[in-house]
Amino acid sequence: MADAIRVLSMDAVEQASNGHPGMPMGMADVATVLWTKFLKYDATKPDWADRDRFVLSGGHGSMLLYSLLHLSGFKAVSMDELRNLRQWGSKTPGHPEVGHTPGVETTTGPLGQGLATAVGMAIAERRMAARFGEDLVDHRTWVECGDGDLMEGVSHEAIGIAGRLKLAKLTVLWDNNSITIDGDVSLSDATDQVARFKAAGWAVKSIDGHDMGQIRRAMAWAIKQDKPSLIACATKIGKGAGTLEGSHATHGNALGKAEVAATREKLGWAHEPFVVPEDVYKPWRAAGRRGGKQRRKWEQTLAASNYRDDFTRAVKGDLPADAFEKIDALIAEAVQTKPGAATRQHSGAALTALFPNIPEMVGGSADLTGSNNTLVKGTLAFDAPAYEGRYINFGIREFGMAAAMNGMALHGGVIPYAGTFMVFSDYSRPAIRLGAIMGARVIHVMTHDSIGVGEDGPTHQPIEHLAALRAMPGLNVFRPADLVETAECWKLAVARKDGPSLMALSRQKTPAARTVASSENLSAKGAYELAAADGAAQVTIFSSGTEVGVAMAARELLQAEGIATRVVSTPCWELFAAQPAAYRESVLAKTTVRVAVEAAASFGWERFIGEDGVFVGMQGFGASAPADRLYKEFGITAEAVAAAAKSKL
Amino acid sequence: MADAIRVLSMDAVEQASNGHPGMPMGMADVATVLWTKFLKYDATKPDWADRDRFVLSGGHGSMLLYSLLHLSGFKAVSMDELRNLRQWGSKTPGHPEVGHTPGVETTTGPLGQGLATAVGMAIAERRMAARFGEDLVDHRTWVECGDGDLMEGVSHEAIGIAGRLKLAKLTVLWDNNSITIDGDVSLSDATDQVARFKAAGWAVKSIDGHDMGQIRRAMAWAIKQDKPSLIACATKIGKGAGTLEGSHATHGNALGKAEVAATREKLGWAHEPFVVPEDVYKPWRAAGRRGGKQRRKWEQTLAASNYRDDFTRAVKGDLPADAFEKIDALIAEAVQTKPGAATRQHSGAALTALFPNIPEMVGGSADLTGSNNTLVKGTLAFDAPAYEGRYINFGIREFGMAAAMNGMALHGGVIPYAGTFMVFSDYSRPAIRLGAIMGARVIHVMTHDSIGVGEDGPTHQPIEHLAALRAMPGLNVFRPADLVETAECWKLAVARKDGPSLMALSRQKTPAARTVASSENLSAKGAYELAAADGAAQVTIFSSGTEVGVAMAARELLQAEGIATRVVSTPCWELFAAQPAAYRESVLAKTTVRVAVEAAASFGWERFIGEDGVFVGMQGFGASAPADRLYKEFGITAEAVAAAAKSKL
Repeated sequence: MADAIRVLSMDAVEQASNGHPGMPMGMADVATVLWTKFLKYDATKPDWADRDRFVLSGGHGSMLLYSLLHLSGFKAVSMDELRNLRQWGSKTPGHPEVGHTPGVETTTGPLGQGLATAVGMAIAERRMAARFGEDLVDHRTWVECGDGDLMEGVSHEAIGIAGRLKLAKLTVLWDNNSITIDGDVSLSDATDQVARFKAAGWAVKSIDGHDMGQIRRAMAWAIKQDKPSLIACATKIGKGAGTLEGSHATHGNALGKAEVAATREKLGWAHEPFVVPEDVYKPWRAAGRRGGKQRRKWEQTLAASNYRDDFTRAVKGDLPADAFEKIDALIAEAVQTKPGAATRQHSGAALTALFPNIPEMVGGSADLTGSNNTLVKGTLAFDAPAYEGRYINFGIREFGMAAAMNGMALHGGVIPYAGTFMVFSDYSRPAIRLGAIMGARVIHVMTHDSIGVGEDGPTHQPIEHLAALRAMPGLNVFRPADLVETAECWKLAVARKDGPSLMALSRQKTPAARTVASSENLSAKGAYELAAADGAAQVTIFSSGTEVGVAMAARELLQAEGIATRVVSTPCWELFAAQPAAYRESVLAKTTVRVAVEAAASFGWERFIGEDGVFVGMQGFGASAPADRLYKEFGITAEAVAAAAKSKL
Repeated sequence: MADAIRVLSMDAVEQASNGHPGMPMGMADVATVLWTKFLKYDATKPDWADRDRFVLSGGHGSMLLYSLLHLSGFKAVSMDELRNLRQWGSKTPGHPEVGHTPGVETTTGPLGQGLATAVGMAIAERRMAARFGEDLVDHRTWVECGDGDLMEGVSHEAIGIAGRLKLAKLTVLWDNNSITIDGDVSLSDATDQVARFKAAGWAVKSIDGHDMGQIRRAMAWAIKQDKPSLIACATKIGKGAGTLEGSHATHGNALGKAEVAATREKLGWAHEPFVVPEDVYKPWRAAGRRGGKQRRKWEQTLAASNYRDDFTRAVKGDLPADAFEKIDALIAEAVQTKPGAATRQHSGAALTALFPNIPEMVGGSADLTGSNNTLVKGTLAFDAPAYEGRYINFGIREFGMAAAMNGMALHGGVIPYAGTFMVFSDYSRPAIRLGAIMGARVIHVMTHDSIGVGEDGPTHQPIEHLAALRAMPGLNVFRPADLVETAECWKLAVARKDGPSLMALSRQKTPAARTVASSENLSAKGAYELAAADGAAQVTIFSSGTEVGVAMAARELLQAEGIATRVVSTPCWELFAAQPAAYRESVLAKTTVRVAVEAAASFGWERFIGEDGVFVGMQGFGASAPADRLYKEFGITAEAVAAAAKSKL
């Protein structure tokens, strides 16, 4: 049965004439034991909520997963799809893509992230089990990972989180083959991984990854641990290959005709490419149907459960009917009371209004809870043994946190949000991107969003981050100006089912901008006229976040001089780009003198002000000083904006 | 003497009314022993090349470093500067900034990076020692780091590199105070750090960080190790504070008047704020002059050394006189032979021409040597025990690699370059940014720069990366079109002394673009007219890298229809922005129909084509298929560019 994986992997890569046969061939034995004896799944029902999750962290070895899916009977992964490995439109892209191929739990390829994402799945499982009971939620997360995954820094963050939280239902199968692309692992690494995992609070067992008995016993052992477990599987890369077994030459290239023939001979596999004999299919298909009975029983349990409706809704990702009741009241009140505060504080207020009404929400921070305003008062920490808490102390691990959030969202049933300083969005950026590719419903709370950070200086002041994040496809970047916009943006972020959102929030106080009630969520338009000109507009000032206050003050200065000036707030560029052209044109008002003010790099602002507009903002990195001083020194003031407009009139 | 650090730190933070007193107070004893007994330095000569490096990885505790610099006699850090902590224009910004304050070796603050940067310093020391001998180069790197540093993923990569390379002259002083911002470390972490460092191949000793004898003995022990060493210093955060000693309340806030008074009382420190009595200054100043004799002797050794001129030149950062001899010949030849190949291959050719002539260059890759074309044939690997090699196998550690490169550049005497796939610039981004802030002379080699990656699919195809990198201040992003441009860009990158460069290079083949000899480096202009229009230009096509070939083909199509079309190549936007306005206007040719083609996100391209131009490129993430197919499916073709131009005529 394992040889079927080997031959399919080798042949599909040969057909594509590129790909990675070495890992699938090396891990075929381990995967076969897992998928035939331990993994809880039903190939006829890939989205069964209580299935075990299998994560192939070394996504380059996608043929391992595609072979498993095909052999065990996932309909979508037909033999034709294997033949079309790495081709346009196939279900078998170079790296596994969640949402694209049934049975794939997460998109992998960027090393280390599969493991870190799996930690999030294991977190979501425990949180769901605490909420709905183990009758409905009781499954494991299994991760294949390789040496590359374990060298990446994010693996350290991931195993630290899992070890601290004692995620006992998480097991990592380490493909310990001592090979990387450039050659032996020893070229670049001398880490004792077993000792390292133990140091992080994991249970560890070392086995021969080609001994079926040892594999079986190790998996049975893993299930009994009260902490996360690592099975170090000593394997040969390209196991079974005619002459190249154990060589890094099998890692990332097709084996070639001669080697393929030699491998067939060595394995005693007499069949043509893409032919699997019935006596091999039969036990594989049986394994794929193994979970059917359990699945049907679980469906009955769900049908009879008091939690049925809530569970179903949560897994579907629909919000409770009264999700926005409190936050809408908050908005209505804010229009009246016009509170001036930091938008991170407004965000805390918005969360306080959302969190009790949406039990799917699970929060956290990378050790900046008080600064990020992410903890809703009275919320328990998520922790062993009961896991009933809804707040995760992720530690100083921004990347691991963001990847775990992706995993939580992919698992389903929870809506994760968590905070750090915006400058550290660079640390979590690879996971923000992967979440955007996957359309994961996560909310990144990024406070301290400009030079308004003040004294902490240039290392802590985002300059190019807004541009860098706005450039990323699939991510909605929100930079609200006051409490009303902050609450509106939170509503949009929480309601978005098909992708990630990011909130850019200020450290420093800013005045209320929206002081007139509106029947619609104006932030949903992405950009809108916040203040009309007094008369036919001569000047438009575009702005976002804390600089909307600067724009409004500049408008006062200009109008006092008889210059009719309108102000456009731009809380979300992505949503604005999706508006009808006529609306966009009306907002852009190209015939007016256009000025943009944002305490950030100018990159991308030509979208609003054209080539001839004036940008008032940052030209380089920031500096260490009180925030007010920085705004003055860098010339981001109402006076500067007014002068810029006048220079163009 | 240590109490002087405590009181100065407390008082300066009090004066600023914000900052971080806890760490300086906790680590005062350890730092005092280091700076008075072990650290090799001369306060009168902060840039002595053979000094020990001290890196404060927890940069928030900047007052520890500023106190040490002031007390030991670094002139630039006067008492007035301590008074001006975290104020505009002071030498004492919130986090230490290299180049801004003498005695500061690297900018720190983004956690984990100080440690990772220090690894690069230790690498550079060994490389320089191998080249010039231990008479001239024989110093240690000492790192203070905290729990936050050690939770960050990059710390894993850093200690993995150091352990593998047996960097015995690197010692980490871990401020083991069990406290993070949110509270006890145990809130979020349960890692056995001692076991973890041992697993990574480090020597480890645990001590009481307030016992001077233990500190001294541990440092003496560290010096004797044949591998990197960790001294785990059990400390109390805010040690000496009146009532808050050991509390996370001392971490990131001024202590307040009452606590400051209580601390003075507890320490028996009767002096006013910013007053240090002479009997405390005296031994500190003596410590700061301790290294003077050794430094003068070293200067004599240098003066008498055969290596004098080379060493001095290398440390100064000047290139050898014949640095560009071979690469200029390569350029001259390429104009004639017009080779078509992937720009990553051209980059390999450029390196082969530069590397032998510039012995400061040290290369490497994050396990993608063959793909990145970063290894010049015949180059030895940098490795223990002799370290004479000039190529570093960094392993699958992009972030750790980039941070180490920063450290190598800051150390001086070497010019580091290293490669990975461009999509993983997201992994190394925090270090790319820190290098840009610091003006570090490093060269990031980023191959596989677009959907041209092909079969590996969206996780491996950069889309928004060009925009995100172009948005970063201080970084020169080069995307050359052929061998001539690649060689020109390499020359610019290597010659740049005051900041980082990044080469975006293709996986796939592209035709020669520059087929006419030029007396100047045209890439130095950032953007230039590659092909003039036949007649008065009606259309301008802007492009970079592999799409320059597409632009040239589109020009053929248009000119065949009688539409006069010019092509502008844009290898470096940052250099273009620095050109005189008249030159820029002439290149932009705003009266022509403007089209841009780049296999990337459009974000930022309005800078070249205005609001009314047409962008031909990517609208979202890529897909898995052969590269040619992807270009067709995503509509990035000469036909599409020609059609776009015609639609606007």
